[in-house]
Amino acid sequence: MAKTIAIPGDRVEVHLSKVIYGGILLESPEDEKGIVLLKLDSGYNIGLNKKDIIEIKRIKKGEIKKERIEIKKDDKKPDIALILTGGTIVNRLDPKTGAVSPLTSPEDLFKSYPKIFDKVNVIKVEMPFMKASEDMDYKDWQNIAKICERLLNDKDVKGVVITHGTDILHYTSAVLSFFLRNLTKPVVLTYSQRSSDRASSDANLNLICSALAAVSDIAEVMLVGHANSNDEFCYAIPGTKTRKLHTSRRDAFKPVNAKPFAKIFPNKIEILSEHNVRKSGKVKADTKFEEKVALIKFYPGQDPDILDYYLKKGYKGIVVEALGLGHVAVNSRLSWIKKLKEVQKKMIVCFAAQTIYGRLDPYVYSNLREIMKTGVIYLEDMLAETAFVKLGWVLGHTTDKEKVKEMMLTNYARELNDRLEQ
Amino acid sequence: MAKTIAIPGDRVEVHLSKVIYGGILLESPEDEKGIVLLKLDSGYNIGLNKKDIIEIKRIKKGEIKKERIEIKKDDKKPDIALILTGGTIVNRLDPKTGAVSPLTSPEDLFKSYPKIFDKVNVIKVEMPFMKASEDMDYKDWQNIAKICERLLNDKDVKGVVITHGTDILHYTSAVLSFFLRNLTKPVVLTYSQRSSDRASSDANLNLICSALAAVSDIAEVMLVGHANSNDEFCYAIPGTKTRKLHTSRRDAFKPVNAKPFAKIFPNKIEILSEHNVRKSGKVKADTKFEEKVALIKFYPGQDPDILDYYLKKGYKGIVVEALGLGHVAVNSRLSWIKKLKEVQKKMIVCFAAQTIYGRLDPYVYSNLREIMKTGVIYLEDMLAETAFVKLGWVLGHTTDKEKVKEMMLTNYARELNDRLEQ
Repeated sequence: MAKTIAIPGDRVEVHLSKVIYGGILLESPEDEKGIVLLKLDSGYNIGLNKKDIIEIKRIKKGEIKKERIEIKKDDKKPDIALILTGGTIVNRLDPKTGAVSPLTSPEDLFKSYPKIFDKVNVIKVEMPFMKASEDMDYKDWQNIAKICERLLNDKDVKGVVITHGTDILHYTSAVLSFFLRNLTKPVVLTYSQRSSDRASSDANLNLICSALAAVSDIAEVMLVGHANSNDEFCYAIPGTKTRKLHTSRRDAFKPVNAKPFAKIFPNKIEILSEHNVRKSGKVKADTKFEEKVALIKFYPGQDPDILDYYLKKGYKGIVVEALGLGHVAVNSRLSWIKKLKEVQKKMIVCFAAQTIYGRLDPYVYSNLREIMKTGVIYLEDMLAETAFVKLGWVLGHTTDKEKVKEMMLTNYARELNDRLEQ
Repeated sequence: MAKTIAIPGDRVEVHLSKVIYGGILLESPEDEKGIVLLKLDSGYNIGLNKKDIIEIKRIKKGEIKKERIEIKKDDKKPDIALILTGGTIVNRLDPKTGAVSPLTSPEDLFKSYPKIFDKVNVIKVEMPFMKASEDMDYKDWQNIAKICERLLNDKDVKGVVITHGTDILHYTSAVLSFFLRNLTKPVVLTYSQRSSDRASSDANLNLICSALAAVSDIAEVMLVGHANSNDEFCYAIPGTKTRKLHTSRRDAFKPVNAKPFAKIFPNKIEILSEHNVRKSGKVKADTKFEEKVALIKFYPGQDPDILDYYLKKGYKGIVVEALGLGHVAVNSRLSWIKKLKEVQKKMIVCFAAQTIYGRLDPYVYSNLREIMKTGVIYLEDMLAETAFVKLGWVLGHTTDKEKVKEMMLTNYARELNDRLEQ
């Protein structure tokens, strides 16, 4: 590689023999010293082999801004609280390292997302942890719920917005729906798929719409995010009825087997479906949770022995993503019937739909009735992810088989819908 | 229950105290003698408690038709072959038992689906087995592929249509795409979500459009079925790029990360994307398959020990449905890194997208790069179900890690797409 005067943080052009890349030069990681890391304008990082590089031209010196911002509370605006748990939405590119550094104060937020302050005062910011969502588990969910409880019971707070990584956001929105019932105020989860340093970032619209949702009368746990790939409006979707359905699109979260509560524009809310409304009173988080629950996706030819594995490991309950209307193998050399009977002496087994959309119906075929007779609980139109966290929550309250079944089939948080035209 | 003169097969009205059900009386199963089973006009069966029934009125005696049909081969029409493997599409209600009895001859088919014969001659019907698709496994796939090979190499056959249950149809369409490469003629998989005795059955349109696809120039393995919930046209979707996404809708199968090959109306085909075309030559089925492959859906807090379980059971490869761009836990108490390193000394591990839509990208975050360094093969935009059968097929050919990786990332049957605007 030829010599270069550029340093991390500078805008550069990297010349290879046939192509020129433009972007911000990043510091190479310790164990990749042969690589030049570049933040492209698309927001993605690219690693280029030093030996392929002919020249790095500095286009513009990197700047380090150190402004001091003061945010004045505006008494005419409603007050909300924010819980920051990590994820792309609270990350800022550190141009020196290419690493992300979290926004941790109202001032930080104001710098990245000034428009949210047009609508509301952010009077509290809590940061219980800063994690990529794939590293979270039920303890983090309990932690968030407890903080929500405290903030919701603060008379100055009109609603709570939680920022969260997208990867397990739908698990979190579902479990909070069970932990936080009989809500008095809105609890809004939001995200971004593209970081704030990218032109195409979805963070601003999602945050503004979340602020509006948080001061609305919709007293529900909801996920607020882009309704389509335009930057026009968001949906507020019931926390138990959504799932990430795209790796990178801004409208990755879709309502599944349910309608959104509302369509939210930056300046208005259009109500789309029935919801609980804001009321007075105290909120009590109910966060008991049994850790020993598992999720299995059935695949053709799968050995039912997998059920034994979980039983032997001390698991108390399993959600199986079954095929079609609720099938697993019944009349093959790897029939699940015998094993289902066996393990259900000591463990709960529920079925949810692998198709994601639609509803299980164990009455259509005789082999479905045969599975049901082993004791399997068929979870209607409940999403598998929602079923997984609900089973953990239910088993945190009771281990009595009949009571578990009753609770799994009771609609606590819109997780079960009446039959819909879908 | 009051007395009744109705027998199974009769059209009846069942009077309860507050409601009257109309339908065809079915024979009760041996172990449910307290139940009266009724086939409703909606196509669903309902079980009514005998003690709740006030009266069963016979409206019309059941008829047993025994017509003899002769189908004349029309030399002006093209000839196709059919492979019947089971599923709703080849089932007919037996009014006596409520059980389904399969259509097993061209005559049977003609009675249920006369319109398909307007377009083509069905000159061969093969029925290797008659199974609910959830009971199928790789041996059935090999069986179907071998029959396809024979039929495709028959000079009189212009194309092959396979009827199949919906539940694992997308696994079968994917695996046949690998077994049957370099096709000379179309191989069409089709289905119905609602049986032919229901007014809303999708079977007729699906079969007619499949017949058209089978005599078209699209020499590919494709799935043909309703494009939307109307009864107007079907899509022909690449066999590796589709998935059942609804338990009951007629358009349950959607193209995922790909365009359909064509839009098929009952009287015309509109080509939508690039495809291989009909040609001369012989087809050779390549059905080697390693049975010991598994599919795991990662969930928050999942113990990586599940990888050990499969290793100890002698599994050779695993597809993990990872979160987001390709995440599992890395920085938590249940980090997968150590276990991933360990098991990959003896086993292949691939990641596919749990979000279904979109593409994995292990270069965006440092924890993704950390996972990739353990040896995990990131499968781009390949569907998890397609990845599962492809891994079985690849491991049937080689166990060399580098060769497996090369084959998994080689586009054999449109399973990997170039980056698309999605």
